[in-house]
Amino acid sequence: DPSLKVFTLNSNKGLAHEITEHIGVTMGQSSVTRFSDGEVQINIEESIRGCDVYLIQSTSAPANEHIMELLIMIDAMKRASARTINVVIPYYGYARQDRKARAREPITAKLVANLIETAGATRVLSIDLHATQIQGFFDIPVDQLMGVPILADYFSGKQLEDIVIVSPDHGGVVRARKMADRLKAPIAIIDKRRPRPNVAEVMNIVGNIEGKTAIIIDDIIDTAGTITLAANALVEHGAKEVYACCTHPVLSGPAMERIDNSKIKELVVTNTIELDENKKSEKITELSVAPLMAEAIIRVHEHASVSTLFD
Amino acid sequence: DPSLKVFTLNSNKGLAHEITEHIGVTMGQSSVTRFSDGEVQINIEESIRGCDVYLIQSTSAPANEHIMELLIMIDAMKRASARTINVVIPYYGYARQDRKARAREPITAKLVANLIETAGATRVLSIDLHATQIQGFFDIPVDQLMGVPILADYFSGKQLEDIVIVSPDHGGVVRARKMADRLKAPIAIIDKRRPRPNVAEVMNIVGNIEGKTAIIIDDIIDTAGTITLAANALVEHGAKEVYACCTHPVLSGPAMERIDNSKIKELVVTNTIELDENKKSEKITELSVAPLMAEAIIRVHEHASVSTLFD
Ligand SMILES: Nc1ncnc2c1ncn2[C@@H]1O[C@H](COP(=O)(O)O)[C@@H](O)[C@H]1O
Ligand SMILES: Nc1ncnc2c1ncn2[C@@H]1O[C@H](COP(=O)(O)O)[C@@H](O)[C@H]1O
Repeated sequence: DPSLKVFTLNSNKGLAHEITEHIGVTMGQSSVTRFSDGEVQINIEESIRGCDVYLIQSTSAPANEHIMELLIMIDAMKRASARTINVVIPYYGYARQDRKARAREPITAKLVANLIETAGATRVLSIDLHATQIQGFFDIPVDQLMGVPILADYFSGKQLEDIVIVSPDHGGVVRARKMADRLKAPIAIIDKRRPRPNVAEVMNIVGNIEGKTAIIIDDIIDTAGTITLAANALVEHGAKEVYACCTHPVLSGPAMERIDNSKIKELVVTNTIELDENKKSEKITELSVAPLMAEAIIRVHEHASVSTLFD
Repeated sequence: DPSLKVFTLNSNKGLAHEITEHIGVTMGQSSVTRFSDGEVQINIEESIRGCDVYLIQSTSAPANEHIMELLIMIDAMKRASARTINVVIPYYGYARQDRKARAREPITAKLVANLIETAGATRVLSIDLHATQIQGFFDIPVDQLMGVPILADYFSGKQLEDIVIVSPDHGGVVRARKMADRLKAPIAIIDKRRPRPNVAEVMNIVGNIEGKTAIIIDDIIDTAGTITLAANALVEHGAKEVYACCTHPVLSGPAMERIDNSKIKELVVTNTIELDENKKSEKITELSVAPLMAEAIIRVHEHASVSTLFD
């Protein structure tokens, strides 16, 4: 279908090229460079008049650079008369700034949604938005894919015995439940509590993990504080071994050191965020979301349901 | 007037503090830092409910970082119930991307105007927007200040004799004319032409510069190619000495080397863009726009005319 064109920006070119291979199209030609002073210089090098364009960019670190690249490219596509501009954002940055946690804070996740619409996007496709409310920040259609099936399939293939799926906090229980259903396993929850003010947190574990293989699941692993403390607590409380997994490996600051020094045997992530060289570790296994995203793009283009992808 | 509050972001704190001193207010308290993954974390640390806030930020390099900081702060101010959000942008980045010079290019200067409005700004105050059309990119009021009077006053004070004001290209003639009127001097124009394709450009000079002290004026000096070639051409054609001046010292890439190796005796700039340590040179004189901007903020706040500042 010549009206479907896929373009990529700079955040995640490897994933983008995998996606075009799965769809069976060549990558749209564009140049995204910098002027001498660092301003983004974009040129689309083929006609997209009347086309449905799919533009791939994670707004991962450096988030501001990646967001501005995305907005400027959307602007160029709008002015080049694309029929629809479908932005594919495997990792949606600023998702954690989705509410005013304190007075006089911004709600940057909403701001970025407004910016993307103002630039001219007509649809958004993402994976595991940190809060499902973020869909409602947009006034254009948002399709959300799930990382859980990909992560569950991987652990299925390992044929581990006597497993338990662990949510590292109360906010992640729904996700852990979905994973557990797919793996026909029970769940457990890490229940962090501070007994009194100015006393260290206690890692309480709700559920039976004794002698079991624990798999901790989260959506984002950033500095890896939560997940490594959880892993160590699980081992202390008698877990046989601990795996961890997440959709979005942000892995900033002390993350790599913490993971390498932790009781985590293997950390399984997806490629919604490209791992730099310094974030590769023997402990990390990277799974690709390209087949899922390619299938979703085809379905969106054929006006078919994306949610049935998970049946 | 307690309803007037001035805040600054990170691009140009020195200028911002000078401005609050001139106005006679203390700087609004806010923290603008980064999360571990580089995402902007902002908190406004005093109530601004019902206030008229003036937020100072040049969108100079790194432009994308400075633009996102600005948008996120505007969002926070809007949600903190500011009555008006007046953004003071001494240097408006991306101003040169103000039209489609080629097919399928973005018009980033217009995009950024839309983004600033979407975030919630109610007014813009800037100096020497590269193209006056950029005012029309906004649907909110834009007041534009001029650098020429500040630059002209400086040269007046030097009491140079037999001067000529030079525009480095045809686009800058109006600006050179304004400067010349203030200094009661004639003008000249550098008329770059390429006699035949693939032949080096010829620097033709329109106007009499023989034995005179030439002052080249431009709005932005970026890589300094145009201005240093112009200076050398002026000396070759018999100018006695050459000064250069501009409002916005972008000075990227080879700029400093070119200036140091050129025939320019002194380069006079303003502080709309903060000069890094590696951009300080004995040849460069920096003038402050703080008194002008402070006066403009007071006038805007008192609903007085800003344009009369230049009478
Ligand atoms: N990039 C970030 N890194 C770390 N914390 C963040 C980031 N963005 C927002 N937050 C904070 O994370 C908290 C929300 O996280 P969560 O409870 O996981 O939704 C809020 O207090 C936010 O201020
Ligand atoms: N940051 C930048 N650095 C250098 N050139 C730019 C920049 N932004 C836009 N341009 C180009 O500068 C030209 C316009 O400059 P001007 O003729 O001075 O208005 C256009 O061809 C733009 O593509």
